[in-house]
This record gives sequence, structure tokens and C-alpha cells, in this order.
Amino acid sequence: MEQYKGTGQTRTLGRPVHILGRGSVAGAKEGRGPLGACFDYVDGDDRMGQDSWERAESRMQALALDRAVERAGREPELLFAGDLLNQCVASGYAARGRGTPFLGLYGACSTLGEGLCLGAMAVDGGFARCVAAVSSSHFCTAERQYRNPLEYGGQRTPTAQWTVTGSGAVVLGREGTGPRITHCTPGRVVDLGITDANNMGAAMAPAAADTILAHLRDTGRGPEDYDRIFTGDLGRLGGRLLGELLGREGVRLGERYGDCGGLIFDGAEQDVHCGGSGCGCCALVLTGYVLPRLESGRWRRVLFCPTGALHSPTALQQGESIPGICHALVLEGGE
Amino acid sequence: MEQYKGTGQTRTLGRPVHILGRGSVAGAKEGRGPLGACFDYVDGDDRMGQDSWERAESRMQALALDRAVERAGREPELLFAGDLLNQCVASGYAARGRGTPFLGLYGACSTLGEGLCLGAMAVDGGFARCVAAVSSSHFCTAERQYRNPLEYGGQRTPTAQWTVTGSGAVVLGREGTGPRITHCTPGRVVDLGITDANNMGAAMAPAAADTILAHLRDTGRGPEDYDRIFTGDLGRLGGRLLGELLGREGVRLGERYGDCGGLIFDGAEQDVHCGGSGCGCCALVLTGYVLPRLESGRWRRVLFCPTGALHSPTALQQGESIPGICHALVLEGGE
Repeated sequence: MEQYKGTGQTRTLGRPVHILGRGSVAGAKEGRGPLGACFDYVDGDDRMGQDSWERAESRMQALALDRAVERAGREPELLFAGDLLNQCVASGYAARGRGTPFLGLYGACSTLGEGLCLGAMAVDGGFARCVAAVSSSHFCTAERQYRNPLEYGGQRTPTAQWTVTGSGAVVLGREGTGPRITHCTPGRVVDLGITDANNMGAAMAPAAADTILAHLRDTGRGPEDYDRIFTGDLGRLGGRLLGELLGREGVRLGERYGDCGGLIFDGAEQDVHCGGSGCGCCALVLTGYVLPRLESGRWRRVLFCPTGALHSPTALQQGESIPGICHALVLEGGE
Repeated sequence: MEQYKGTGQTRTLGRPVHILGRGSVAGAKEGRGPLGACFDYVDGDDRMGQDSWERAESRMQALALDRAVERAGREPELLFAGDLLNQCVASGYAARGRGTPFLGLYGACSTLGEGLCLGAMAVDGGFARCVAAVSSSHFCTAERQYRNPLEYGGQRTPTAQWTVTGSGAVVLGREGTGPRITHCTPGRVVDLGITDANNMGAAMAPAAADTILAHLRDTGRGPEDYDRIFTGDLGRLGGRLLGELLGREGVRLGERYGDCGGLIFDGAEQDVHCGGSGCGCCALVLTGYVLPRLESGRWRRVLFCPTGALHSPTALQQGESIPGICHALVLEGGE
């Protein structure tokens, strides 16, 4: 019988799964942000030469994946992909014509984390020698779908976040010398009753706390075992709430904590209120910022915790609250 | 190094993964259909005691999963779930409060097939001793989201299918005596240019042909190696197209072929045009009809091929065509 790889919620890979390639494609505003120079490609007008924003988002995914596959130097055998659009069409259309078996995911802004967990398990289980995970979001496709038509020009509330325009792709494989995934902690659906669609950070913070506490408990580690701990896109407010929730359990992340939604924009200059959000947010920060620092040896071990809010406009109109989810992955520097 | 389990698109599990439990919850029309007596629970008014159809769909998922877990006699350690609703909310809300790590999927009507593939790989890879896969659809939530408000009362075209109201859940595990999964063939995204949202069968038939041909090629098997071969929900027209596409490659499924969309309703009496569709369709047929026949030994080996159409109303309004996908699984009778 094969070895059981679980302890609580956390799975320890039999052998680490390597990151063979990464690709990042960002929108114009993201290109002007603090991480702008980190991305493989920045589009000037967020259109990617397409005639609709939805097609532009699909194109971003295809390009990010092409870049990751090019860096990896090999084709993935399974593709894990998802996005925020209804029926995940950015991913479905991006995968059309690629010829790679396709596993569509919906984990809201946590999708890349879910894809990396499942991709790493597929490689470690012997089901593929090489897989890819990709996700995307686009300010213009998301805003009109989740909130208001862009032309409406509504005032944004102070707790609002700005949906990132961009896509990040990662190719994983058995053999390699780059950064590696050693553990993953898939998260549970947690709902503390937030009903404000403009306060995603508060909706997702309890899920982030739940998964981080489970991860630390399962592995017997403390925050000090990580050089950096990143959440997906809690934003400024959600990050503070996470600190409070963890503090009650005696866990203090301290200076090693960062949030992808806080890193991607300049809070003072770019008028994004609580920070960035969207599937593309943690995907860009991972592929453009975190992985290069693991490759260079600047960081040795990172806990990467993308978060998602599993609501829909219809559910909110029916009075539902917003459940959150967070998947955590341990990334270690290359050998 | 662990053994590589892939041949082409097909993965052969190291050891078969057993189906430990199944649950099925159907709507009223499905309960009056030819398989009505097969389901664990049939609701009288499709409301499940809830105040919205969306909540009713969530409730169906939760109940189907409860029944499957009860039959299995153990709690899953990972939950793979998805549905047709925007942002897959039927699944997200059904999973809230369950406390099981949650992996949200979007594969349109193929979702349960995707969940079973990933679930079987998770068990076989040692990442869980027990997992669950569940999916659902609801006529009233799907029609108003994908086509027209129900009150509009529009004429249905002859190629239209009827979205099934129901949910099916399966619990998988390492040890057991029930039917088992031996192979899975995750499918590729295939698009031959269909743009009619009322002709899903034609949009999905090419994907079904692609996956079935890949499966037979990878395994060196022919249709005669299976007692039955079921597609997800191609309906009457899509089933005929599949026959034509396979015929061109010299493959004839013959009398062993059935389509879940054709089985679930009485074509002559229930006014469903081309048959049933929706994530709930193949989920109900699998859990209510196929698995019991494998359990009883009536069939020894079945190829189960759920199909999905990866479009969205927005994409179709923008002139996009409808890509299809199909995942295939080999199910064998209990030991």
C-alpha cells in the first residue's frame, strides 16, 4: 500500500514537485504598479488586441501559459485552469485548440492555489510528468459581471478592492532544479456572515486564518519557519482582520506577512482603496515576484495562501452571505 | 521513482479505487421518468423546502452527499464539487459548514466525471483515504441563467434539451468491495464551431468522440470490451452525431451505447425534445442506475463519459462558438 500523505488538512508530497516554468501577463495599471517591472508582458490598453474584454482575458491566459511552457521547455500533460467569469470562459476558450487534457476549476481568487495543489498531487501521484496551472482576472470583465456596468461610474466604497487585470501560469514537473512545492493544505469553506460584496477582505480573512492555523498545526511549524507568508488578496482591511483572528490563537505573523492585494498596487498613488483582488492578483505576484526570489535564493521558504470569496451576484441578491476559502502551499527555494 | 501511470490521455490507477457510497436526489419530473424509482429521494415540487431555486439546488447537493457518506460509513477528507450556476454557488453553499477541504470544479455537465477523475487520482496518489465528488443542476436555476426567464414561456426548439433537476454524489476510497474505477481519460477542449445554445448535443459530440477514441487507442480496447458505454448528456441528436463521428474512424458502439440524457426522461411522454442535460443528469444516472447494476453484477465493465459545453451567455452574445469537453472513466463491478 502506498504511503498516506495526509496529516489533518495538510498533504506532504512524497517528493517535492518542481516549478519548471512561470509566465506573467499584466494589464496597464498593474504595469505602473510597484511590481510592474517583474512581469513578462504588460499590455498598454488591457485589450490584448482583442475586440472584447473577455477575449482579452482569454488571450492573457494563453500568453502566460505559452511563456511558462517555453521556460519549462516541455508541454504539460494536464492543464488546471480557472477564472472569475461566469462558466469560467476565460479558461475554456484559452484552452481550446491547445490539445492538453483540461480540468476546469472554480475557486474564485484562490483558483491558482487550487490548481497548484491539484497539479502537484497529480505529478506526485504519477499521473503526469508535467502539468500546468493558470488563472486570470480582468478589471473590466469582473466589474461589470460582479458589480455595475463600468459606464455607471459608481463611487467605490472605502473597503472595495480593485480587480487585477492579468494572468499567471506555472508549469510543474517531477525533475528540476527550480523552486519546489513540498506541502499543500487545501482549505475549507468558511463563512462568518459578511454580506457586503465590496468588502471581500473581511469575507475571506476567516478562511485564511482557518487554513493557516490548520497548516501550522498539521506541520508543527510556526510562522518563524517561513521567510515570507503571503495571503492571496485580503487587501489592507482583510490583512488586519487576519492578524486579529490569528492573534486570538496566539499566532503572530509579524513582518514576514504580506498580501498579494497589497503588493501589486501602490496604495498611496493608485487609488485602489483596500488593494488588488481577482484570480490574476496572486497569480501575478507569485509568478512575477515570489518565484524569482525563491529562484535567486533570497528566500528559502514561503507559505503562499491564495484566498477566494465563493459568492455570486445572484446569491447576494437573495440575501446570502459570502463564504471564503483559502488554500496554502509551501514553496521552497531551488536546490 | 513512482511509476508513471499515463498512456496518451489515459491514466491507469495503480490499484483500483472503490466506490464506497452513492447518493441521488431528484426533482419531480425526473421522479416521474423511467428511472424515477432508482433515486434515493424525489422532491415533490423541486423546492426542497427552500425559498429560492438556487438554495433548493444547494440543498439537493448537501442531501445527496449526506446519503453517499452515510452509505460509505466514513467522512471524506477532500470534496470535489461543481455545478452550472455562476461562480458554482450551489456547491460552495452546500459545502459551507461541512468542514471538508473543498476543491471547486467547473466542467459544465461533465463536472462529476472531472470530480471522479481527480478524486480517484487523489486516493491513488495517497493524498486521501476517502474523497467525495458531487454535482447538481436545477431546471429553474439553469434556464433563467442560460436562456430566458421561466415566465417568458418561450417556444423550445427541436434540438433543445431539458436541464435535469437533481444531484448525485459518490464517495471513493482505497479499500472496499463495491464497484471500482480502474482508468480515467481526462478530455481536451474541442470546438467544431456550433453557436446555437439550444443545440448542446451537437456542440459536445465532437468532444465525446475525441475522448472515446483517445481512450480506446490508449488502452488498446474496443467497444466490445465494455458491457455498456454511456455519454453524459448528448441527447438524441448529439448521440446520433457521436455515432457518425466514431463511424468515420471505424468505431461502432452498437447496442451497448446509451446516453444519460436519453435515459432519464421518457422521450415520447415527457416533452423534453432531445433529452435531459445538466450536471445533475449524468450524476443521477450514474448514482441511481449505473452503479447499482455494477454492484449487482449485471454489468462487469462500463465506460462512463460525461460531457460538458464550456460556453456562457456572455460569450455567445459576443459571437463565440461552444467548446465541448468529455472525461471518460472505466467502472468495473465489485469483487
